[in-house]
Amino acid sequence: MASLEFWYDLASTYSYLAATRIRPLAEAAKVTVRFRPFLLGPIFKSQGWDTSPFNLYEAKGRHMWRDLERECERLGLPFRRPNPFPQNSLFAARVAMAGLEQGWGEDFTVAAFRAEFGDGRSIDELTLTAVLTGMKIDPKAALAAAHSDSNKAALRAQTEEAQRRGIFGAPTFVTEDGELFWGNDRLERAIEWAAR
Amino acid sequence: MASLEFWYDLASTYSYLAATRIRPLAEAAKVTVRFRPFLLGPIFKSQGWDTSPFNLYEAKGRHMWRDLERECERLGLPFRRPNPFPQNSLFAARVAMAGLEQGWGEDFTVAAFRAEFGDGRSIDELTLTAVLTGMKIDPKAALAAAHSDSNKAALRAQTEEAQRRGIFGAPTFVTEDGELFWGNDRLERAIEWAAR
Repeated sequence: MASLEFWYDLASTYSYLAATRIRPLAEAAKVTVRFRPFLLGPIFKSQGWDTSPFNLYEAKGRHMWRDLERECERLGLPFRRPNPFPQNSLFAARVAMAGLEQGWGEDFTVAAFRAEFGDGRSIDELTLTAVLTGMKIDPKAALAAAHSDSNKAALRAQTEEAQRRGIFGAPTFVTEDGELFWGNDRLERAIEWAAR
Repeated sequence: MASLEFWYDLASTYSYLAATRIRPLAEAAKVTVRFRPFLLGPIFKSQGWDTSPFNLYEAKGRHMWRDLERECERLGLPFRRPNPFPQNSLFAARVAMAGLEQGWGEDFTVAAFRAEFGDGRSIDELTLTAVLTGMKIDPKAALAAAHSDSNKAALRAQTEEAQRRGIFGAPTFVTEDGELFWGNDRLERAIEWAAR
């Protein structure tokens, strides 16, 4: 079966849309998806940015929030802006990494995005514990796995790999033959490319 | 009839796609389009950029060129990268402004984009004279109109209006009720919004 890598940061607005949409679309096209959480922060820093470009460039940020609101309405998804934006996504990314090792990382990713951008909640330990409990995952064991040295190292390595492979934003989709598609708007084309 | 403003810079890659696509799509939806050329340069400068973000951020630029190539193939449009990028679009924008006053500005816009990103030509006086001649427009009269003080002032005012209205990139579409849609990927949605 063809496969597609889905690279996302848990603080990224358009990754919320992509995470929610990717599994049914890929399944319909018989494409396997590999969820790959990473951190945009270090990549933005290497470009000289200390926060999201949506905060650095006001007009761009204003458009993004309105566009996200319109897109959520079109897709029938709830939308509520978290405060502050961006959320610190380090902890959530570690939980996702651990969960992907254990088989519940995809559901966790979708649920965490939904809590953050559907309900406007902070993706902190309180929220993520509630998300895990809702999924019938033992939060204590999950958080211990997230905080393990090997899991932290795995997330660091994944972020370094993203940067090495030319990923500059999220969501990004990469096909087996190395085609890189950036943005939720390219999800359908990335899947088509992977399936052909 | 509903109407939609189409804001573009003649050096903007994705504006090539939008300019080529907008008239048939709008016509099918019974939406009138108003072509509004402007200059991104002063807007980029106010954000601290002295060139295109696709040049400032290498990975982002690499993706854009590959994405443009893929999109052109999908749309059946020719693609060739002009050198240098971005082209200085001041002169072409002035010709487009003059042409829009005289009724040939839309065809000129589409033809100039095609020369630039379909054939990879510089949008200089030589190329634009050939474009005008191909359209059976007298280049001498057209260039005189482009160089008139009133036309130069009109382009300056249009660029200032773009910035005042929160336009930060091109192409941008603005509906009568003030909804702003950025990017060729939002063309269909902007037309739907305008038509509703």
